[in-house]
Amino acid sequence: MNHKPTDLLPEPTLRRLPWYLAYVTMLRADGVEYVSSTRIAENLAVDASQIAKDLSFINIKGKTRIGYEVATLEVALREYLGFSQRHNAVIVGAGSLGGALLQDSGLHRYGLNIVAGIDSDPAVAGTQIAGIPIYAPDRMGSLVRDLGVSIGIVTVPVESAQSVANALVEAGVRALWNFTPTRLRVPEGVVITNTSIYSHLAVMYNRLGTLPEK
Amino acid sequence: MNHKPTDLLPEPTLRRLPWYLAYVTMLRADGVEYVSSTRIAENLAVDASQIAKDLSFINIKGKTRIGYEVATLEVALREYLGFSQRHNAVIVGAGSLGGALLQDSGLHRYGLNIVAGIDSDPAVAGTQIAGIPIYAPDRMGSLVRDLGVSIGIVTVPVESAQSVANALVEAGVRALWNFTPTRLRVPEGVVITNTSIYSHLAVMYNRLGTLPEK
Repeated sequence: MNHKPTDLLPEPTLRRLPWYLAYVTMLRADGVEYVSSTRIAENLAVDASQIAKDLSFINIKGKTRIGYEVATLEVALREYLGFSQRHNAVIVGAGSLGGALLQDSGLHRYGLNIVAGIDSDPAVAGTQIAGIPIYAPDRMGSLVRDLGVSIGIVTVPVESAQSVANALVEAGVRALWNFTPTRLRVPEGVVITNTSIYSHLAVMYNRLGTLPEK
Repeated sequence: MNHKPTDLLPEPTLRRLPWYLAYVTMLRADGVEYVSSTRIAENLAVDASQIAKDLSFINIKGKTRIGYEVATLEVALREYLGFSQRHNAVIVGAGSLGGALLQDSGLHRYGLNIVAGIDSDPAVAGTQIAGIPIYAPDRMGSLVRDLGVSIGIVTVPVESAQSVANALVEAGVRALWNFTPTRLRVPEGVVITNTSIYSHLAVMYNRLGTLPEK
């Protein structure tokens, strides 16, 4: 049963699938064998018909009255989401956030294999962070080529973000994961994913500021 | 000039404002005094009329032919976004990702003041990470109250995420920043912000898997 993603799934669906995975992983740990879409719906506050639709994208259908087999659903979701594969990545900018991500072993469990860090600070290049070697920027091309790197993670300061993105694309990565608070331009055919945690802070502060006083 | 957020800004606007801030911060560092919305538009690939509209939300208007004053715009954006204030937060779950965030000093520059970590592992509680003390869960209530904590950051494993969220709300935080790959339910009036970096990975893997072979 190999659900290799051949279709471009709608992003909202792709964002909900990990919720289902987290939930069924918990159920399996609790020894639950079957789960209905109604129960998933109640637990995650997602419409039951939406859940059935989302899961049909990955060719999973529940049985009438019994629901979904928990173990099957877990494996199918994990495979479909690419979490059971290994995606080689380099992280450029081993400073504060970059260094933090290098130490997050959780990423590895979700299929991200950070093979190297790259940093322009001569005091950092040549060291290791959490066992991962850090190299100088002039090694980028050979690292990407020799280690089969498809993903470049950008955690440099804003002012060098675009030039680092250009260098990574030039070196041959096929996707950029941008953690900087700026927008990166990439050529067509290169995947760009933005995780702007500082933008999320801005949204949270605004919502906090507009709450009625307690 | 205090642009305290009294209005609930549209989330897309709130997500773009940090891009403008990052860009004008760079311009100021380069000694640029004025910038037109056209130039911002070209650099960030956002429509110029959209930029003018976004900036009008924070009461910033450009001058005809000259554009926006860079230094004024920078200060106004930073203030409006809440980055120049201090928001006290606790982080619950000082494991892999939580420990990493405790070490990200970048958050501090964006107004987030992590005053304490909380972890149920007796080997971790009582220690410090990056100079921030880690406490046992039974201290949550007093920490939130005594240190004026408004934000709870949730970086525990999925199976304890909802109970931690409940405890944080009970303790009195007014916003939750959820880094777990599950959905958290909170009572009305509590702000919830999700940064599901594993969902972002799922989107990136899917897009990578659907690229034509090189």
